[in-house]
Amino acid sequence: MDTNVSTRERFARIASPQEAEPSRTNDSAPAPSGRLDHWLLTRALAALGHPPLTVVLWDGREISGSASGRNSRLVVRDRPALWRLVWDPWFYFGELYAAGRLEVPDGLEDLLTATYVAHQQRQPTSNSLVRRVLRRARRARRNSLSGSRRNIHHHYDIGNDFYKLWLDEQLVYTCAYFADPAMTLEEAQVAKLDHVCRKLGLQRGQHVLEAGCGWGALALFMARHYGVTVKAFNISHEQIVHARQEAQRQGLSERVQFVEADWRTAGEPCDAFVSVGMLEHVGPENYRELGAAIDRCLKPAGRGLIHSIGQNRPGPTSSWIERRIFPGAYPPALREMVEILEPHDFSVLDVENLRLHYAQTLRHWLERFEQHVGTIGQMFDERFVRIWRLYLSGSMVAFQTGGLQLFQIVFARGDNNRIPWTRAGIYSSDGEVPAW
Amino acid sequence: MDTNVSTRERFARIASPQEAEPSRTNDSAPAPSGRLDHWLLTRALAALGHPPLTVVLWDGREISGSASGRNSRLVVRDRPALWRLVWDPWFYFGELYAAGRLEVPDGLEDLLTATYVAHQQRQPTSNSLVRRVLRRARRARRNSLSGSRRNIHHHYDIGNDFYKLWLDEQLVYTCAYFADPAMTLEEAQVAKLDHVCRKLGLQRGQHVLEAGCGWGALALFMARHYGVTVKAFNISHEQIVHARQEAQRQGLSERVQFVEADWRTAGEPCDAFVSVGMLEHVGPENYRELGAAIDRCLKPAGRGLIHSIGQNRPGPTSSWIERRIFPGAYPPALREMVEILEPHDFSVLDVENLRLHYAQTLRHWLERFEQHVGTIGQMFDERFVRIWRLYLSGSMVAFQTGGLQLFQIVFARGDNNRIPWTRAGIYSSDGEVPAW
Repeated sequence: MDTNVSTRERFARIASPQEAEPSRTNDSAPAPSGRLDHWLLTRALAALGHPPLTVVLWDGREISGSASGRNSRLVVRDRPALWRLVWDPWFYFGELYAAGRLEVPDGLEDLLTATYVAHQQRQPTSNSLVRRVLRRARRARRNSLSGSRRNIHHHYDIGNDFYKLWLDEQLVYTCAYFADPAMTLEEAQVAKLDHVCRKLGLQRGQHVLEAGCGWGALALFMARHYGVTVKAFNISHEQIVHARQEAQRQGLSERVQFVEADWRTAGEPCDAFVSVGMLEHVGPENYRELGAAIDRCLKPAGRGLIHSIGQNRPGPTSSWIERRIFPGAYPPALREMVEILEPHDFSVLDVENLRLHYAQTLRHWLERFEQHVGTIGQMFDERFVRIWRLYLSGSMVAFQTGGLQLFQIVFARGDNNRIPWTRAGIYSSDGEVPAW
Repeated sequence: MDTNVSTRERFARIASPQEAEPSRTNDSAPAPSGRLDHWLLTRALAALGHPPLTVVLWDGREISGSASGRNSRLVVRDRPALWRLVWDPWFYFGELYAAGRLEVPDGLEDLLTATYVAHQQRQPTSNSLVRRVLRRARRARRNSLSGSRRNIHHHYDIGNDFYKLWLDEQLVYTCAYFADPAMTLEEAQVAKLDHVCRKLGLQRGQHVLEAGCGWGALALFMARHYGVTVKAFNISHEQIVHARQEAQRQGLSERVQFVEADWRTAGEPCDAFVSVGMLEHVGPENYRELGAAIDRCLKPAGRGLIHSIGQNRPGPTSSWIERRIFPGAYPPALREMVEILEPHDFSVLDVENLRLHYAQTLRHWLERFEQHVGTIGQMFDERFVRIWRLYLSGSMVAFQTGGLQLFQIVFARGDNNRIPWTRAGIYSSDGEVPAW
């Protein structure tokens, strides 16, 4: 139980609500009139694009964002909560929900979908000064070598036992590929690992470099099913410990080397470079360095695959997600991903967007999370449960409504003609690995 | 024969060599020493990356770019030609070859491959001041409504009879798709038209808007095989005349409307927007307008496909190609293509790079062109033959060596969830159109 205590302590430090939660004694300040509440909230709902949402205040008053049909309800428990929500809804919704000062009687999915859809249907704002300032603010949590270690530790080192409760049995914490929509999560994660290997056309005896390997599922899968050797980098201590144990257990320690180090230290030649779900943590200010690392390692006939959450256009990370879930994270626009490859004359061969597969993956994760919510509450606390429920729900809804994308990009050196002639081999069922 | 005369006159105006060809009387200027020729040429070859190339001068002297093995030979017929070549090899090679002042005894493919490969293997230059100045210079031939008409007229209105000599029977003047590498050009062009329709998931009764329709092959194919109606835009008069005749002949005039107008005038709602081989003529300064036109027309559940020659990173069009072949043309980097879609929250679903298919397409075109070189010489003149031989050879080699790419991008509106679940349907042989 020592592990759990330290995990809980660590979380308490990380998710400390001091900054966000106002002192309740503020309520004794001169009370603004009910008309002011109403006016502020009406303006805020208009700014959000008039979502089909009814806000129920602490005194029973109700204010609706739209008159249309059945609205999703949001209960605000006190006036300071309302004021904060009006001031910065995207940040304080998370803070106040986590603290139990907002309630969502119809469920988060309904409420978030209503809000996201209404917000998207407004005219998209240009890359305004405000956005740029927000992006600059984001840069505060820089992903330098030490910054990255701190940022990754925040999320991935809160205890493998927690992740085991709701991920698939191989602990794949990235978008699955439901080749058939009826697949289970377990099947879809295996299908994803195989989809990646087929896109890379891995051949027995080749050497793969993996940047950001999670708990090691892809590296082990590639070695076991494609006969390659793998050097896999990760700076999450708990993940590396687990991955090494798995390699041992599966008898793959000779062929898969898990290195507790930053991808920036990679330097040896490889036939394939692969990175699944790490780019989100790199940050655009380090994309040049990532491109240079790939260029340093990839052999002349090598191939690469980057799998990352993305956006349709550059925009800031959700401030709440950046604060409470993924410090330093940024989901790039496709344009920004492509810019990683440009300086080294890499050629983009294939891009696939698996947005709806991530929505489905998250639905599975969320269901399993809710099944274990009692255990999780005991491992951490109620606040942790609410933060994670909101993070998983919000991500699911963002992928479902088109706010987030999932891009897989395959690339090769610009002068490499040993590239697949068509993509048909990825989808053929003859068991052959697509030829490069 | 009136047509041929006017075609020849038009070409004479277009490809007038006055500007480029120096007066031979310049040769009477004080002759520089043979050592100066040697020094200049050695520097030029070094700047090109030491290609395996031997330059044979008018007096029999030989200077090699590299000592390695079998070099490709380039014969320079006079000293002013050499000086021009040294000054700006990428532009004057074309000018001097067209004028017969350079000869290539081992064939253009060998020579160009040697040069392109050596040039690519140099360290890629950054987006330097020189590049930016060149790009600015390019902007001189702007693709405004009237500029586009002039630029398109230059290339596409030189006579359908000429194109019939060396294109496939449907006159498809864009990259084919050799689903099987053994396909004939005719088969591969049909496969390309079908590949595009499958990616778009066209369903009977839908309405398609095509921007830049060439001689109408895709529009007619979509109507015939997928039961859609099409409105196709083109500003090349000769192409539109041919396309309308074909629609009539095939009994498709009711379902395919060929409009002699710029895509910028498009405004009606469509289920699919498609543009194959037009973006190269739009120019980055008009990408915003193109994005806006798509946004204006595409229905909420619509899908789009843009097929274009591209580059691995932004860089200027070959100055010779821009002058003699495609005024106003620019092959965008993938990043620039994606930027067309960003402001309107379109979501990129799929990108495929068919570079090597274009090399193969061009090999077919070039072979047919050479088979009809006598006829073409009579239709135009020897200079025309040499210009077109170089253009087709140079393009083939550029695709073969990785200097040019061919991107097909499929996109939909960001909030559209009626998108294909996977891409497997594009490759299935059950005859079903992939479901959107």
